[in-house]
Amino acid sequence: MNLRDYKTAEDRRKAFEKELGICLENIGATTEEARIENRIGATHVPMGIAGPLNGKYIPLATTEGALVASISRGCKAITGSGGATVSVVKIGATRGPVFKVKNLSENSTLYEFITKNKKTFNVLAQKTSGHITLTDVYTNSVGLYRFVRFTFDTQDAMGMNMVTIATQKIVEFIEKQTGVRCVSLAGNFDVDKKPSWFNVTHGRGFEVWAEAVMPQKVLHDVLKTTAQKMYEVWLAKCMIGSAIAGSMAFNAQFANVIAAVFLATGQDAGHIGECSVGMTTAEMKKDDLYISVYIPDLMVGTVGGGTGLATQKEALSIIGAKNSREFAEVVAGVVLAGEISLLASLSEGTIAKAHQRYGRNR
Amino acid sequence: MNLRDYKTAEDRRKAFEKELGICLENIGATTEEARIENRIGATHVPMGIAGPLNGKYIPLATTEGALVASISRGCKAITGSGGATVSVVKIGATRGPVFKVKNLSENSTLYEFITKNKKTFNVLAQKTSGHITLTDVYTNSVGLYRFVRFTFDTQDAMGMNMVTIATQKIVEFIEKQTGVRCVSLAGNFDVDKKPSWFNVTHGRGFEVWAEAVMPQKVLHDVLKTTAQKMYEVWLAKCMIGSAIAGSMAFNAQFANVIAAVFLATGQDAGHIGECSVGMTTAEMKKDDLYISVYIPDLMVGTVGGGTGLATQKEALSIIGAKNSREFAEVVAGVVLAGEISLLASLSEGTIAKAHQRYGRNR
Amino acid sequence: MNLRDYKTAEDRRKAFEKELGICLENIGATTEEARIENRIGATHVPMGIAGPLNGKYIPLATTEGALVASISRGCKAITGSGGATVSVVKIGATRGPVFKVKNLSENSTLYEFITKNKKTFNVLAQKTSGHITLTDVYTNSVGLYRFVRFTFDTQDAMGMNMVTIATQKIVEFIEKQTGVRCVSLAGNFDVDKKPSWFNVTHGRGFEVWAEAVMPQKVLHDVLKTTAQKMYEVWLAKCMIGSAIAGSMAFNAQFANVIAAVFLATGQDAGHIGECSVGMTTAEMKKDDLYISVYIPDLMVGTVGGGTGLATQKEALSIIGAKNSREFAEVVAGVVLAGEISLLASLSEGTIAKAHQRYGRNR
Amino acid sequence: MNLRDYKTAEDRRKAFEKELGICLENIGATTEEARIENRIGATHVPMGIAGPLNGKYIPLATTEGALVASISRGCKAITGSGGATVSVVKIGATRGPVFKVKNLSENSTLYEFITKNKKTFNVLAQKTSGHITLTDVYTNSVGLYRFVRFTFDTQDAMGMNMVTIATQKIVEFIEKQTGVRCVSLAGNFDVDKKPSWFNVTHGRGFEVWAEAVMPQKVLHDVLKTTAQKMYEVWLAKCMIGSAIAGSMAFNAQFANVIAAVFLATGQDAGHIGECSVGMTTAEMKKDDLYISVYIPDLMVGTVGGGTGLATQKEALSIIGAKNSREFAEVVAGVVLAGEISLLASLSEGTIAKAHQRYGRNR
Repeated sequence: MNLRDYKTAEDRRKAFEKELGICLENIGATTEEARIENRIGATHVPMGIAGPLNGKYIPLATTEGALVASISRGCKAITGSGGATVSVVKIGATRGPVFKVKNLSENSTLYEFITKNKKTFNVLAQKTSGHITLTDVYTNSVGLYRFVRFTFDTQDAMGMNMVTIATQKIVEFIEKQTGVRCVSLAGNFDVDKKPSWFNVTHGRGFEVWAEAVMPQKVLHDVLKTTAQKMYEVWLAKCMIGSAIAGSMAFNAQFANVIAAVFLATGQDAGHIGECSVGMTTAEMKKDDLYISVYIPDLMVGTVGGGTGLATQKEALSIIGAKNSREFAEVVAGVVLAGEISLLASLSEGTIAKAHQRYGRNR
Repeated sequence: MNLRDYKTAEDRRKAFEKELGICLENIGATTEEARIENRIGATHVPMGIAGPLNGKYIPLATTEGALVASISRGCKAITGSGGATVSVVKIGATRGPVFKVKNLSENSTLYEFITKNKKTFNVLAQKTSGHITLTDVYTNSVGLYRFVRFTFDTQDAMGMNMVTIATQKIVEFIEKQTGVRCVSLAGNFDVDKKPSWFNVTHGRGFEVWAEAVMPQKVLHDVLKTTAQKMYEVWLAKCMIGSAIAGSMAFNAQFANVIAAVFLATGQDAGHIGECSVGMTTAEMKKDDLYISVYIPDLMVGTVGGGTGLATQKEALSIIGAKNSREFAEVVAGVVLAGEISLLASLSEGTIAKAHQRYGRNR
Repeated sequence: MNLRDYKTAEDRRKAFEKELGICLENIGATTEEARIENRIGATHVPMGIAGPLNGKYIPLATTEGALVASISRGCKAITGSGGATVSVVKIGATRGPVFKVKNLSENSTLYEFITKNKKTFNVLAQKTSGHITLTDVYTNSVGLYRFVRFTFDTQDAMGMNMVTIATQKIVEFIEKQTGVRCVSLAGNFDVDKKPSWFNVTHGRGFEVWAEAVMPQKVLHDVLKTTAQKMYEVWLAKCMIGSAIAGSMAFNAQFANVIAAVFLATGQDAGHIGECSVGMTTAEMKKDDLYISVYIPDLMVGTVGGGTGLATQKEALSIIGAKNSREFAEVVAGVVLAGEISLLASLSEGTIAKAHQRYGRNR
Repeated sequence: MNLRDYKTAEDRRKAFEKELGICLENIGATTEEARIENRIGATHVPMGIAGPLNGKYIPLATTEGALVASISRGCKAITGSGGATVSVVKIGATRGPVFKVKNLSENSTLYEFITKNKKTFNVLAQKTSGHITLTDVYTNSVGLYRFVRFTFDTQDAMGMNMVTIATQKIVEFIEKQTGVRCVSLAGNFDVDKKPSWFNVTHGRGFEVWAEAVMPQKVLHDVLKTTAQKMYEVWLAKCMIGSAIAGSMAFNAQFANVIAAVFLATGQDAGHIGECSVGMTTAEMKKDDLYISVYIPDLMVGTVGGGTGLATQKEALSIIGAKNSREFAEVVAGVVLAGEISLLASLSEGTIAKAHQRYGRNR
């Protein structure tokens, strides 16, 4: 059978059903008609709601039982503590091409050309889209390679497509003007979709912080734990455990929460790993608990990519963020809620029970 | 409005539509009735098909245009090269509790207890499930903490729920017998859902390798490139670029491919980051190109968790893997296909064009 | 001038003095006549004494004022607290060759050969020296490469020379028996003289732990600080600061102490970086302070290499360690003393003053 | 015995000899009278000479046989290839205090204060020394902590003492003006004497690059190898081996060379580990070989600290560098020489023999 013989998702699906002797009716039961290649339908990922948190409800798409309940509990604890304080800095999307020079001398010449032409690069970038601005150019070299990291403001889009196209134009200009060849438009200096220290120490997308101070009463009533117990788990797990295991992430577990929000709202699932690298801190304030999360690299948007698909668009409407910055704030809060609930469960020894109750009955 | 007042997804969804003045009809248009909490429906992630690769078709769920086409091209190149060779070693799922001792002396006593009671631990584990076997116990300590990493064979399940419950039983036994307290059932020594060097250097889930040798003709006809060009991009990007950026992943980009396969087949999306850490190697064989991928930590299963959901189950039936090991082999091959196609695009300077063509029209 | 024309250090030194118009009389003022190449004399590194610590005095060679005083203060604090408890596990010296195969299949064959012939490898190793035993063989592969990590017990020698020669013999045997070629006898899988997560997670040389509980009175009288202040600096600096900076070392600063002990006692200065990677932990016990250090990779010996040189031998006689294990214990204690004193200084804000007083007058 | 009872190194040494029944005559045989605490004499580290390289001889202090010979061979190969090209960028010495705030809001206020007062900070710094200039202020925060990295130009001194004293003044000013407390003057955000990704991605001290193109004839006559063999070892060891082992250093081995130059010239031995993290690249130019080294973090000086001691000063006079920048260039060249010779040995399988010949006869 040849996939290219079929024009519609339905034809393709039916051909498969016949060829393989299987039934794909649920995959076909979708209203989604996105133009991906060789489409046969859609995966349905169960969606639940957590919140409210700082006044907003958060849609979560996950196959994992207990996750929505856990995040909901974290939201309740935060709300009971007067809400979360959130701070956001926009860094921007990056693309990092790599050039190949003949020797150190040519490398220095290229360095000067790149650092002196930022304005021109921005003009070139803006010709490719009305929504893009070049905000930073960072470069480093090793041997015959020069790596450049272009950072762009892409308004409310996550922006990887846009910055790829803009960088292509800039690269063509550099090649033409300097005679130096670009080996690869993406040279892992972006660093796109890979956990990396460069992104952690320089930031990417949005840098976000969220914090809450949870009174003893909330810790007791909502989370069934104490400040001391949570602090102890945080220190043993998020700091010492992560350090001894060579983990790049110093948190209880951002990944499930990031994944559920990303899937629900049409963010790029390839970014889940990169965006789950971050740090949680905790501190006892007598019997209350201060707790915070920090995500140095949060690649999100509210327009473009998967955000325009039918169910994803509806999910975004539940949150009702005005723009990508406000959306980043919401993510920061939800990640905080997830950490609070997970650390509380671990501190009370109920995590296995939660898995038993929720995780088993599917 | 109180989420707990609503018994069905439909009631809940309608309440939201009314409360927020929005429409969630597409989220509601699903056959999926998974028992996650506060369910309102499902996210639909477009699904396309790539392949055949080593005789199998691969369902991919993604919101990113160009991805299915890219992987398909990689499959075609591999097939034209005589297929991929794949190798898999099962490590198993891990859970890593952390204990708190009084001093070095008690820490040594605990060490001895743990290393001498592996058989008993396995008996306890097997009481919690007929599908679990304890295969390894690794432990390390720092200060007043002792971290233990229990590794289990969980048959064809990815197994995190199972190993959490089994570890809970083992931990209770250790606490009772030694009087040492467990601070946290999960102490980031697992290391679950975080990119970490421990997982890379010790392995987790499955370790998988895949390789192909692509003749000049395939490189030219299918990939529009040459061995030398691809090799050059690989070295500049995957090795030197990743090294200079402090990336934990030495690949062109496993993450998109891992994400698309995981979403389609009901794997845990929280594992995407952890499983995207791996290495690609390339080597010129005159005008042909040897290329390989290595994933040291691939957490996948064919039963349990999200694999039992309606669309995910159907997607697995497309692949038709006999068990989780065979499924891991398929993932290795698809990741290889993705690397081949992406490196080829970068080597030919067509990556921006692909983004322009496919990425923009949604 | 041709360095090879001169037979003695004196001739060579005088030729240089004449050629460059400089005076090298102090370099010449040495009793050391080690057979290094092109020798002209010796560097004199000032040596001071710290201690006693657990009954032993420790010679420290350093050009940094304040260091000996600081370590001495740490020793005094430990002694006032009843001494340090120390624990040591011998891992052994490692050498990690890399082999090149034709494909995955040959790689598997090589894997089997290597894992099945450990006894033979040990026989070969023992033919090269009466002081060596092969204790472990660990291997991993990627692409066409197979990396092997041979671990040896080298009795009281640090042992890198020995294990290099032994590994050479084993490698020749593997090449002959399997027809697979070794690309490099040292493939950075050792990992020799580079900070690496593999060494941290698998251990190398000796793994050592040391701890002390310091009563409030000692904290006050000797260290002019409190448990809370020291704890606060430890958490902010060693854990959170190191984590946010992508540091591989989670300590206040092992490096100065390691360097000073290594130089004084003839350890290999190339190992200073690798052995300075480790973790410090602290915990308040009401008004007392528990503090510990952990070094996962301590490459030291009491025979061979620089330990046989005149001044180094004398320095070792000051410590009077019976063997390399006991020497490793001493290093653990001194590192603990250094951490205690440095954290105390930082907690009291006197570090700059110490630098001003001691660091400036040379 | 009480160390404080003795006024001179000789008295102290004699007391030790009597107390422990040992002889310390060689330690006493020194002209060095540096004012370190509890001094008893000096360690003599054998010093040899390598070079010339780019017209300069390089003193090396080491206890390891074969090292001087190996570096000399590398120098000869470079000289035969027309010399090394070297490039240096001065970053400066850094000190990284950590402050403790009450909440995110105060953290933002502190951020603004710090970013707006750079000029004032410089004025304060310059009051502490006529040799210091504040060149950069970088800050990041997590939870209740704000980390600041002050970078200074310290002229020809490595400068850690100077920057510590200057930072102390700046910190006192910040505390007084903002009411925020500094937890630790050094918060591991420097990152001083620890291998860290922050230093690699932001640079510290000097960033240096060196390269050479070695003709086939030199490879054959001097190094007994070929371009292809050296390239193969480089790729397998420095890139793939380092990546799979989680090494922070992507080189054959900078550490021995850095250590030998640092010891000979009075650099701070505590910096050896941090400065040995860097990357080597290689590339075949038909039958010739391009090879380069990159050190992102080279903390060196030609005045202050150990550079003023008698033998160290003489060693510096052998090199005859005009200033610290020129000295950094020399280090870059020597490190390149070391890499060339070591990779050549490994490629020819003679490394074990060299160890056997030189390493054993002491």
